[in-house]
Amino acid sequence: MSIDRLITKIEEKKNPTVFGLDPRFEYVPEYIREEAIKQYGLTGEAIKNALVTFNKGLIDALCDIVPAVKPQSAYYEMYGLSGLSALAETISYAKEKGLYVILDGKRNDIGKTAEAYAAAYLGKTKAGDIEVNNELESDGLTVNAYLGSDGIRPFVEACKTDNKIIFVLVKTSNPSSGELQDLCVDGEPIYQKMAAMVDGWGAETIGTKGYSAVGAVVGATYPKQLTELRQLMPKSYILVPGYGAQGGGGADVAGAFDKNGLGALVNSSRGIMCAWKKGDYRPEEYQKAARDEALKMREDILRYI
Amino acid sequence: MSIDRLITKIEEKKNPTVFGLDPRFEYVPEYIREEAIKQYGLTGEAIKNALVTFNKGLIDALCDIVPAVKPQSAYYEMYGLSGLSALAETISYAKEKGLYVILDGKRNDIGKTAEAYAAAYLGKTKAGDIEVNNELESDGLTVNAYLGSDGIRPFVEACKTDNKIIFVLVKTSNPSSGELQDLCVDGEPIYQKMAAMVDGWGAETIGTKGYSAVGAVVGATYPKQLTELRQLMPKSYILVPGYGAQGGGGADVAGAFDKNGLGALVNSSRGIMCAWKKGDYRPEEYQKAARDEALKMREDILRYI
Repeated sequence: MSIDRLITKIEEKKNPTVFGLDPRFEYVPEYIREEAIKQYGLTGEAIKNALVTFNKGLIDALCDIVPAVKPQSAYYEMYGLSGLSALAETISYAKEKGLYVILDGKRNDIGKTAEAYAAAYLGKTKAGDIEVNNELESDGLTVNAYLGSDGIRPFVEACKTDNKIIFVLVKTSNPSSGELQDLCVDGEPIYQKMAAMVDGWGAETIGTKGYSAVGAVVGATYPKQLTELRQLMPKSYILVPGYGAQGGGGADVAGAFDKNGLGALVNSSRGIMCAWKKGDYRPEEYQKAARDEALKMREDILRYI
Repeated sequence: MSIDRLITKIEEKKNPTVFGLDPRFEYVPEYIREEAIKQYGLTGEAIKNALVTFNKGLIDALCDIVPAVKPQSAYYEMYGLSGLSALAETISYAKEKGLYVILDGKRNDIGKTAEAYAAAYLGKTKAGDIEVNNELESDGLTVNAYLGSDGIRPFVEACKTDNKIIFVLVKTSNPSSGELQDLCVDGEPIYQKMAAMVDGWGAETIGTKGYSAVGAVVGATYPKQLTELRQLMPKSYILVPGYGAQGGGGADVAGAFDKNGLGALVNSSRGIMCAWKKGDYRPEEYQKAARDEALKMREDILRYI
């Protein structure tokens, strides 16, 4: 099971964190942007080149200490086809460097369409005699389960067939997540109802380490719920956004881990990508800045688990 | 307000329907696929060419009788970058032919990231001095509001600034939609709670026809809820999937309309795209088949409103 592949990487690197690759053009150091514009003019190709150069630099700087990357699809989609092409190159390079790739796309739809999304990101697409090049295929994908089981099952099937994982939104990190997720049904908040569904969807996909291919997204900004949900979904890996730039710290995420220090993967995006903008770094030192920040984050979290 | 643009097109064509462009490669008549493979070999370029040729043919056949198209993003994403390039060409051609384009992407994320999705599909992306080519920019977008208000507001802002519309998932057409959406909170199902939020989000975007830029998705497969939700969201246009292939008919969608025959846009995808596979049509007549089906659908719906 693919979740074992992720856990093995986490154990090897003694690091339960993932770094988010959400590269707005303005996060890229100016000298890289200028070089790209010099080479390609004021074009989409220049944007693509700048994003890919920056991402590859970050991957090179972190691939020996971090087990996984999480590109956020929106930050590539916003640059049109050039951005999507940058995403494809980023995914490919990250895999080449041995990183586990979780695409943050929060995809969702009814069954037939969920099958298409699963083919796009977790499996293989069939098109007669043509071998489809699924350039955006990743090891894992985030999904949204507002549509219920038949919108999730196609993803779970892809996990089984193609050795992949998904993370279902349970309690998200944003301030207004409670508007829907905290509503109470028979004394139980929606996010707990969702957690019970996640636990059920994963039941047939348990790997050798006791974790299933169906994980959950729970924000570091809600430490109490993280601890609760760790108990309610004992077999689900928890992907934890909201560390760093969004305000969560090591103490806040501690409850997401099991007694062996497994069970959670904490994400930092802007904190690492934009580390070069803080402290005494020059823009040319963005890789060192990212690495320093990633090491600090690992230390901060390992202290609590 | 952009919703007025849509309503004007609906009134001009006396047709409250939208045709879904969800072209799996196997839906494309074989002679088109063979021609594409002859020209481009067994490549992604051949897939792209076949999808675009088929879509353009459908658009040509329907653009004088139908106000809008709804490409389903998943069916392009599943063919990788070639598929996304086909989506860009399809959107561009549909706009050229005067059709209103609603991209069915069900995007969702926390505020900052929702901004990026809004830029990708409803607005314009900024990247220093480079003018970003947002090839996937549409007139409307479907979104999922599991994350609450701050995941929706950036889309609403884009609607205001860029004269666009969104449709929020309220009660989806699939069999298991009730697992979450029908759960009762204080005696009220979640989909009604969502409807109240949709009504609120749209309040500042009411156009001259009395409808807001924030619409809702409610499936034709749930006629009772359609009627209920029409009352609960008096200012929201309802995008109604589930007609035809999924089982809904004219009588089922009648409750989605207001007393003037406005307020709803009924979608058919496979029913129209694959019309050539039914009846006595030759594959070369797929355009005629689609047009016949679209006219039948219009008649079926107008009879009830």
